[in-house]
Amino acid sequence: MPYFDAASAAPLHPVARQALLASLDEGWADPARLYREGRRARLLLDAAREAAAEAVGCRPDELVFTPSGTRAVHAGISGVLAARRRVGNRLVVSAVEHSSVLHAAETHAAAGGAVTEVPVGRSGAVDAARFAAALDSGTALACLQSANHEVGTEQPVAEAAEACRAAGVPLLVDAAQSLGWGQVDGDWSLLTASAHKWGGPAGVGLLAVRKGVRFAPQGPSDERESGRAPGFENLPAIVAAAASLRAVRAEAETEGTRLRALVDRIRARVPELVPDVEVVGDPVRRLPHLVTFSCLYVDGETLLHELDREGFSVSSGSSCTSSTLTPSHVLRAMGVLSEGNVRVSLPAGTAAEDVDRFLDVLPRVVAEVRERLGAPAAAAAPTAADGPLVVDALGKRCPIPVIELAKVFGEVPMGGTVTVLSDDEAARLDIPAWCEMRGQEYVGEEPSPRGGTAYVVRRVT
Amino acid sequence: MPYFDAASAAPLHPVARQALLASLDEGWADPARLYREGRRARLLLDAAREAAAEAVGCRPDELVFTPSGTRAVHAGISGVLAARRRVGNRLVVSAVEHSSVLHAAETHAAAGGAVTEVPVGRSGAVDAARFAAALDSGTALACLQSANHEVGTEQPVAEAAEACRAAGVPLLVDAAQSLGWGQVDGDWSLLTASAHKWGGPAGVGLLAVRKGVRFAPQGPSDERESGRAPGFENLPAIVAAAASLRAVRAEAETEGTRLRALVDRIRARVPELVPDVEVVGDPVRRLPHLVTFSCLYVDGETLLHELDREGFSVSSGSSCTSSTLTPSHVLRAMGVLSEGNVRVSLPAGTAAEDVDRFLDVLPRVVAEVRERLGAPAAAAAPTAADGPLVVDALGKRCPIPVIELAKVFGEVPMGGTVTVLSDDEAARLDIPAWCEMRGQEYVGEEPSPRGGTAYVVRRVT
Repeated sequence: MPYFDAASAAPLHPVARQALLASLDEGWADPARLYREGRRARLLLDAAREAAAEAVGCRPDELVFTPSGTRAVHAGISGVLAARRRVGNRLVVSAVEHSSVLHAAETHAAAGGAVTEVPVGRSGAVDAARFAAALDSGTALACLQSANHEVGTEQPVAEAAEACRAAGVPLLVDAAQSLGWGQVDGDWSLLTASAHKWGGPAGVGLLAVRKGVRFAPQGPSDERESGRAPGFENLPAIVAAAASLRAVRAEAETEGTRLRALVDRIRARVPELVPDVEVVGDPVRRLPHLVTFSCLYVDGETLLHELDREGFSVSSGSSCTSSTLTPSHVLRAMGVLSEGNVRVSLPAGTAAEDVDRFLDVLPRVVAEVRERLGAPAAAAAPTAADGPLVVDALGKRCPIPVIELAKVFGEVPMGGTVTVLSDDEAARLDIPAWCEMRGQEYVGEEPSPRGGTAYVVRRVT
Repeated sequence: MPYFDAASAAPLHPVARQALLASLDEGWADPARLYREGRRARLLLDAAREAAAEAVGCRPDELVFTPSGTRAVHAGISGVLAARRRVGNRLVVSAVEHSSVLHAAETHAAAGGAVTEVPVGRSGAVDAARFAAALDSGTALACLQSANHEVGTEQPVAEAAEACRAAGVPLLVDAAQSLGWGQVDGDWSLLTASAHKWGGPAGVGLLAVRKGVRFAPQGPSDERESGRAPGFENLPAIVAAAASLRAVRAEAETEGTRLRALVDRIRARVPELVPDVEVVGDPVRRLPHLVTFSCLYVDGETLLHELDREGFSVSSGSSCTSSTLTPSHVLRAMGVLSEGNVRVSLPAGTAAEDVDRFLDVLPRVVAEVRERLGAPAAAAAPTAADGPLVVDALGKRCPIPVIELAKVFGEVPMGGTVTVLSDDEAARLDIPAWCEMRGQEYVGEEPSPRGGTAYVVRRVT
């Protein structure tokens, strides 16, 4: 059954499994102890640290193992912010960072710190010059991911690092999505990653802090992992994480090329096979294995459910999926359509046939969901109408407001407007996105006297 | 090769190994996802939580999995202190808590909080009435371990919980050393534990917070584990932790009885076989598998090293072992001898023959270390001497100051005193302990004009 959500968690790499098994017997003791079992554990830990440091491109004593990528990010950000408190309290982040970074930024802001979010363009990338311009003399730390976890777009990390260097600001790079594919370019100061993203086991993150970066670990002190990651080391998993990082790196070029071609196939074929689709993210400067697209008039949760029934495991940044009621902050920051959003991220070893079968199944599944929701089959031709048109979609969840808009749009005379009333947060993103896709003019929004928001669209084609 | 340091980390239980292997294939995906692999992971996580909650004696929704026992303690303490800030800022702990608790207390004190350390008696137990007396109207939280990790003494947790309940103060019980042996008695509010102490894998701790306890997780928010333990769940290890907790519990009564008898054998035989030994910790109210003793005139690090050469892995609370230069805070709080300290903690399945061989080897090893250090073979008979005796042990590390004291003690006339000058922190504990063991009078200490401290001992027998 094809699992296409490697960006959430990759299946365990065979090398990780093997290393985990081997070190269960050799690596259960406390590496801080001086007896035989402790020394054996210490040797394993040291070797894992060396292997991971080599893959990251840092010195072994610059790298510690944390319990997860999230904890690495939290520790990295809080450690620099505390150590550079006298320099200033500004934290600069891109608007499309992983939630672990943005939540750390919220915590910083709640404690009185300043946070600057650097916006991204429609491809999901920050503009390096704009990132540089956000750095001021009171900036304690800047964070920029190596590549986006939802749309795969690579960030200009090397340029950002140069700008940070020039401004005397340390740069933390969240490399969770890219580290398995290669080292991060540029002169970063801190780097974080997560083993289960590259086929290592859960329970292991990496935090690298370059020598010379001021760093003050927060929280209660602990002598393990240079005082930067309290608690007994998750040793067999650490060994497996390091071994599998080496292994995926050895395969990265070949496998990256192969998956890139499969993703290119998806990028090209989906808009041909499925009407009213927007493929998002940079088509070239991107992760090899990840592609995201959004389908108009489709409810993300139903789409995921139907794809799951067909045997495909994918994820979505749509609102109305599982616990979330707002579209992903990434899609929002990019200003792209969020409804019917699907992220496909191929694990290493994905068979071309599985991708073909996905392309085979997807059009039918989307069509069925649209039919069930009563979506318009095609753009309606304009007909005459009296007075301004108002669509009341209050109380209706995504994608219904956009579907209702599309249904009445045929009645809008050329140059006329239609107003959609909606209290679903997704409409704010999806109605302008619909206009963009349809070549119509998005006039703007205003508070609706009947509650929610009134979105105004003008017919121009 | 006998491994006698289960209190640091127990070898992986066969059930843990089996469960870990099985869940590597079923439990690598993100349990927050709705597709097949995610649902499977969620089922495993839910089942593990139910099993662990049953073993702890709480509701599944009261229990979260953390990356370690240390992180469970840190999260538990900071969460209650923050939530009960308006009640007060006092944290009450016993003086012999695990370092994770005491480090959290230091962090609290550094941030302006108040910390009360409740002292312990010579057995290592707090007095329940004294613990109760430490609770005031401004106490936000009290912490008491279920049993001590260095000497095995059980704490009066049920009485402490009753006192806390009466005072309206939540009680956090660190059950790291005892949870494998059984549920914690009494009406605790929070409980923490660590899987690798009961034969589960590294990377898993437990934090239980009773419904109704005010709790505000600190640090950046995260939706996993009820917001109390950020980061991707360490799932296969969590499954293994829960499965092995059930397994060790099923064996606890039988194995506890067997190990208790082996420990009783050590407690009885060591003082018979080795001269000048103090067995510490409560002989009855204690963990079944753990015993600690200290040997006069012995350097802890050398002793550990020699025992390791003989194939025995034990640990020590002596100063001069590995990184530490001060005696363990537990031995210090108990006021017992720290030099030549050995902790034996038997993992489940320890063979009686291995214990016998240990008892066979220990006397010879101790005698050899003593001989090498020039320790006195027996208490010297008094001889006449002129003027007050002064032993200058400045610059000499434990156990040399006590050895020098013992060597000259024969020259001290009855009723006369000898002064030992020492700048080793261990002397503050070990010279009074020597007096106690020898039945001599410890007069007291004063700053030495030549640096360090002058310890005065009077000959009374």
